[in-house]
Amino acid sequence: MIDLFIIKVGGNVIDNPVLLQDFLQQFAAIPGKKILIHGGGKIATRIGDQLGIVSNYVDGRRITDAATIDLVTMVYGGLVNKQLVAQLQAAGCNAIGLTGADANIIPAVKRPVKEIDYGFVGDVRAAELHTAPLKALLEAGTTPVFAPLTHDGKGQLLNTNADTIASSLAIALSDSYQVRLIYCFEKKGVLRDPADDEAVINLINPAIYQQLLAEKVLTDGILPKLDNAFSAINNGVKEVLIGHAKDVLNNTTTQVAGTLIC
Amino acid sequence: MIDLFIIKVGGNVIDNPVLLQDFLQQFAAIPGKKILIHGGGKIATRIGDQLGIVSNYVDGRRITDAATIDLVTMVYGGLVNKQLVAQLQAAGCNAIGLTGADANIIPAVKRPVKEIDYGFVGDVRAAELHTAPLKALLEAGTTPVFAPLTHDGKGQLLNTNADTIASSLAIALSDSYQVRLIYCFEKKGVLRDPADDEAVINLINPAIYQQLLAEKVLTDGILPKLDNAFSAINNGVKEVLIGHAKDVLNNTTTQVAGTLIC
Repeated sequence: MIDLFIIKVGGNVIDNPVLLQDFLQQFAAIPGKKILIHGGGKIATRIGDQLGIVSNYVDGRRITDAATIDLVTMVYGGLVNKQLVAQLQAAGCNAIGLTGADANIIPAVKRPVKEIDYGFVGDVRAAELHTAPLKALLEAGTTPVFAPLTHDGKGQLLNTNADTIASSLAIALSDSYQVRLIYCFEKKGVLRDPADDEAVINLINPAIYQQLLAEKVLTDGILPKLDNAFSAINNGVKEVLIGHAKDVLNNTTTQVAGTLIC
Repeated sequence: MIDLFIIKVGGNVIDNPVLLQDFLQQFAAIPGKKILIHGGGKIATRIGDQLGIVSNYVDGRRITDAATIDLVTMVYGGLVNKQLVAQLQAAGCNAIGLTGADANIIPAVKRPVKEIDYGFVGDVRAAELHTAPLKALLEAGTTPVFAPLTHDGKGQLLNTNADTIASSLAIALSDSYQVRLIYCFEKKGVLRDPADDEAVINLINPAIYQQLLAEKVLTDGILPKLDNAFSAINNGVKEVLIGHAKDVLNNTTTQVAGTLIC
């Protein structure tokens, strides 16, 4: 019996006021314990443009220089996170907005420089998460809402992938809860045919995953999500569900939409 | 015996890296339970200028329009708050950054429009503070760090005076703790002669306060602080201490510097 829902919502929902409002209503309506992890959306780029902060990308990955970590701390850790909290409060959900630096819940290490210097990007020190304050907040009836930021313990905030934060929290909390980890994204699930939005694969287990990889039907965009998902499953998380924000919160007890990974 | 320190630090310290570093080291070194409330400093004005957000003032008070509440949510609730948290973590203090919207700790009402429309400014609903999650965080050994923001419970964040947040929290927590409320500012304390920085009045009680008012020796700037201080004392707070950030944290058990109000 699932008793903790950990839900990651991406920028495509954050950026769309109508989608976001529906999502927050559905999220608030989930009974029991839940955690939200949000991405940033395009607002950081827009405000960065206004501030003259140029987004640098290498191989499609944003480089987080000093100006950019301040930008995402403002926009993800401040504007987006606190607006989500205020809106969830209005929807009757007792949200509390956090980063991984808060209560030292998610220690990270600045990504070592190899071919690429990613700048102020954090790799989660997954074995060192501090779940005690998080469990205290859950037991007190509050709903933690995480911005995609961590810290190095030496005073430096770090930009961190929201999918990874979600899976790391799910794994760390699996010792105390039966966790369903839900990734909301812009598709109805993992697709057998990227051109057909209805071609949702309902179930993926390790054998099916190997077969899909061999058939090369999976797009590059979905592979990191699936890697995160299997890493979670292999480390104690009960279920991972991937699908559209409109569908995956409607079925919090019995899975009826999206792709279930187990 | 004081068992909770509630400390408000203003923009003059936030804006000065050397002062701030000293302050955070001293704050982190205070044993036992403590809460920090911070102001914003000039960085909001600087970033606002870059974003083309004009600060409007009426009678010396900033008007918080829609662009400005987003700005202060980013800068106070995001950048300043999370940098303080990361730096306190580095100093060994298990800080957790919050606004009044988080866990609905500080409900507020948008200030009613009379002569002046202050915009998205919140007046604290002092009788309705939710201290249970705050006490849970204190008992769990974490140190709450508040940005000067509240919310109306209907989804709107509100810009709120940090001194008022500090006194409201101090009063609300007086049912469970013996609270010393400390206001750090740029002077050594309340001055008998505003031109003489050493003319610190060491003790103010209601009788002395009336006498000082009659003598008209108090400047306009200090009067709201003293009103907040007496409001706190009259509502259960054990002690209020006003003085320079360098002095007032050094004497957390026996008062030796600054102005004590009781």
